[in-house]
Amino acid sequence: MNYVHGYSARESVRLVDQATTLTELLHGDTVAAAAVVSRENLSNVTLQIADIFALPFPAESFDHIFVCFVLEHLPDPIAALRCLQPILKRGGTITVVEGDHESAYFYPESQLASRTIQCLIDIQAKLGGNSLIGRQVYPLLKNAGYKDVRVSPRMVYVDSSKPGLVEGFTRNTFIAMVEGVREQALALKVMDVTDWDKGIEDLYASAGEDGVFCYTFFKGTAVRE
Amino acid sequence: MNYVHGYSARESVRLVDQATTLTELLHGDTVAAAAVVSRENLSNVTLQIADIFALPFPAESFDHIFVCFVLEHLPDPIAALRCLQPILKRGGTITVVEGDHESAYFYPESQLASRTIQCLIDIQAKLGGNSLIGRQVYPLLKNAGYKDVRVSPRMVYVDSSKPGLVEGFTRNTFIAMVEGVREQALALKVMDVTDWDKGIEDLYASAGEDGVFCYTFFKGTAVRE
Repeated sequence: MNYVHGYSARESVRLVDQATTLTELLHGDTVAAAAVVSRENLSNVTLQIADIFALPFPAESFDHIFVCFVLEHLPDPIAALRCLQPILKRGGTITVVEGDHESAYFYPESQLASRTIQCLIDIQAKLGGNSLIGRQVYPLLKNAGYKDVRVSPRMVYVDSSKPGLVEGFTRNTFIAMVEGVREQALALKVMDVTDWDKGIEDLYASAGEDGVFCYTFFKGTAVRE
Repeated sequence: MNYVHGYSARESVRLVDQATTLTELLHGDTVAAAAVVSRENLSNVTLQIADIFALPFPAESFDHIFVCFVLEHLPDPIAALRCLQPILKRGGTITVVEGDHESAYFYPESQLASRTIQCLIDIQAKLGGNSLIGRQVYPLLKNAGYKDVRVSPRMVYVDSSKPGLVEGFTRNTFIAMVEGVREQALALKVMDVTDWDKGIEDLYASAGEDGVFCYTFFKGTAVRE
């Protein structure tokens, strides 16, 4: 499967930056499995990679399922959530975390900068994903048959009084992600190279002294009846 | 001065709905003057209407200044903030609350619905205001000369598990505000009446069973040195 974030070295660095910067915001109220494993010196934990549509687990295997930045890449996210339901115990819970690229806005405003983000949205859509899925976490969980769905937004607000977020989120997570699709974006031929480069430059202005950058993740929890 | 929200009966009802629904979100951590006055049975409180650019108060009159949904209507918001500074005591504080109409996004997505909101943004801009000012609260306060500027976003996230917000915010505050500029919007001739009505209908879908609506206010505080 083609993966919008690619597999380059810079993308790998970016994904680590993103994970580090967002850990507390997104997962501060989630039980952090790896930390528990390490702290409690547990030996009965298995990390395993599998296809969400062909999971090698018996029915009602899990107390909790955690789905983070996955649904955005799938053509049929409801089908994926339905595949997860049988392996969850009755009364078990699921957590879903997704971003929404249209929740990105910034100061100074710039049409060209907005168009670079639109390219990223379009490329992910062409690959069968949906980078605007954050706003849909509530109806997706509900329509996949889960109960007690609760969604809370996690807004990242960044101004220059927060240099850690300027660096870790605005520059090294979000703008780096947009820059990461440069070649694919130019291939779309909706922006020429001059406009693209100016758009990226304008995005960086939102990480400047008077700049502001906003983005929102959505975290949903629900129960299997 | 022309006022984008108008003076009609429906607008008045909408502004009361908005005030009621948002009180806790926006002002829960602000000292509520009227409540204190009433509870403490104070007799030394004066309510007074004046022009922000010609305030009838001596220098260093106030411990705190509270500015809510005002800067969005002014052609020169920094000048207004500068006018307020001399009447604030040294060490006194200012609070600014503003919305940002580009922070509005919703599910189901709809190009026509987005265009009705864009009409509202354009109309307010034509009247000399800026409905995208929320994101600018940090640089505005900083560049007007205030110190220790701190801005926090107040995101309103509404899905059908929150019927009070569906009614009080999505329908009766936000969509009603967009509907309130119908005549001015049609006069812009960027949307015909069929598209406008479909756009409004699509906005109402975000208040439906599977709908989601998001909007963000920005609250800033700062100090006069």
